[in-house]
This record gives sequence, structure tokens and C-alpha cells, in this order.
Amino acid sequence: MQYYEDIEVGDTAEFGEYHVTKEEIVDFAERYDPQPFHTDEEAAEDSAFGELVASGWHTASMCMRMLVDGPLQERAGMGARGVDELRWKQPVRPGDTLSIRSEVIDKRVSESDPKRGYVDSFLEGRTQDGDVVISWIGLGMIERRNPGEE
Amino acid sequence: MQYYEDIEVGDTAEFGEYHVTKEEIVDFAERYDPQPFHTDEEAAEDSAFGELVASGWHTASMCMRMLVDGPLQERAGMGARGVDELRWKQPVRPGDTLSIRSEVIDKRVSESDPKRGYVDSFLEGRTQDGDVVISWIGLGMIERRNPGEE
Repeated sequence: MQYYEDIEVGDTAEFGEYHVTKEEIVDFAERYDPQPFHTDEEAAEDSAFGELVASGWHTASMCMRMLVDGPLQERAGMGARGVDELRWKQPVRPGDTLSIRSEVIDKRVSESDPKRGYVDSFLEGRTQDGDVVISWIGLGMIERRNPGEE
Repeated sequence: MQYYEDIEVGDTAEFGEYHVTKEEIVDFAERYDPQPFHTDEEAAEDSAFGELVASGWHTASMCMRMLVDGPLQERAGMGARGVDELRWKQPVRPGDTLSIRSEVIDKRVSESDPKRGYVDSFLEGRTQDGDVVISWIGLGMIERRNPGEE
């Protein structure tokens, strides 16, 4: 299990392999983001996108799945404080395969709770062609192995 | 239809009514965020949350649905540039009913495309008791009615 002390600023990782299907794009969007360019292939052709594309929240959710199946498995995580600078950079299309690159950009011990470490990471979701489709800064919390030490 | 010129900094709105069920919490989490406190009622009782709670990305997605069914219906929207300062402030539980409060905090014309207006809003998702469960700054784009004018 990975604790706060095991993580260093500058650590990078690449992980995940998420195959995006038309059915899943439409399924998510019908429930959470029913705009025509997410739910209707023909209407999407007449939209600014020119084709069916995934909801931005769907893209974020698919990335979450890769995090849960990936690095979070091994981590003494305590949940997330939030997300900064979430950006949708390019559309995600049916047939894309997504993966993630992450880099730790900051770490510090919580001032209010010495058992708790804060770890901030910059994350990018990419297609099989290396195009960045989404990026964000994840504000994570992780247990300290040795809360008594500085 | 509402264009850039129709929106003023300081405009507020309250809208939406989303009933959160246990089934939907589990359904979303099994696909996108399969951590035990989102997918397994018994395991959740032993977690830091003490009960089953919604994935943060699920909460954001439910809010997106209220936006699509609400103010986005009437707006000449051009999609979102991104989200800043997304924060999960309290857990969302089965039986909660969510709604949204929004306030426009900034607007300006795109420097690269005079047909395009940028409108930034601070949004809060709240429970039936008025507790804020999520907040974020939405970075929206909206058509100008009169692109030639300043």
C-alpha cells in the first residue's frame, strides 16, 4: 500500500485503456447530458462537432474508472478535495481508446489533521493517437504512514 | 433565445429537482467509480462515510442534467471551455433531492472570435435541506446576437 511518504513531486505514471463506444456515449448522455450532439448521430452531423461526441462529464467519468482500476488500487486514499482547471480540449469520439498520464505537482501535510496528506496531480486523458482530450488538477488526500514525523 | 447580450454579471437563478436513488448511485458507480462506499451498502457502513454515498462525478453529472433541462434550454450556448474550482463539499445520499443555484460572475467577448461570448458562472448543488454538496465555476461560451457591436 502506498502512503503519503511514498509519493514524490515529479512522480509520473501512465495507465488505463478505455474503449469508447457509440452505445455508451448515447447511454450516458440520455441520462445526464441529453444534448443532440451527444445522443443523436444524425443531429450531431449538423452540429458544430460534425459527429457524435461524448459528454465532457462522461469523459471525466471514464477517466475516473481508469484511476480506480489503476493507481487508486494501491493507494491509502482518503478521497478527493476537488478538482481545479478541468478542461475539455478535444472531443471524444466512438472508437477512441483513452488512457491517462499523471504527474504529482505538489504535496503537503494537512494543517488541521496530521494523519492526512494532500497530494495534487496534473492529469491528462489522451486518445490512442496521443491527442489530449481532457486535463485537470486532482486534489487528493492520502494517509500518512508516520503521522508523528515531520 | 438568450444571447450574450441578454446576460448580466450578478444574474442569479435557482432551478432543478433531481431525486437521488440508491439504485442510481450504485449503477453509476459500478460503471465509473467502483469504490465500495459507492457500490456496496454494507461496505459503506464500515467506511469513513458510514453509509452509501454518490460518486462525486455522479453528483456533477446529475447537476449537468439539471442544467440541460433548465437554463441551457433557452440559451444560444456553444459548449463549455471547462470548469474551475470543482469542490465536493458534502456527501450525496440516497433519498436526497438536489437543485442548483447559479450566479453569473464574469462576461467578456472572445478576443479570437467576435461571434463568441465567454460567460463564467458560480454554481452550487444543494440538497432539500439547503446543504451545499458541490460547487464549481462553469466557463461557458454563448453566441453574441450582434457580433459587430462592442
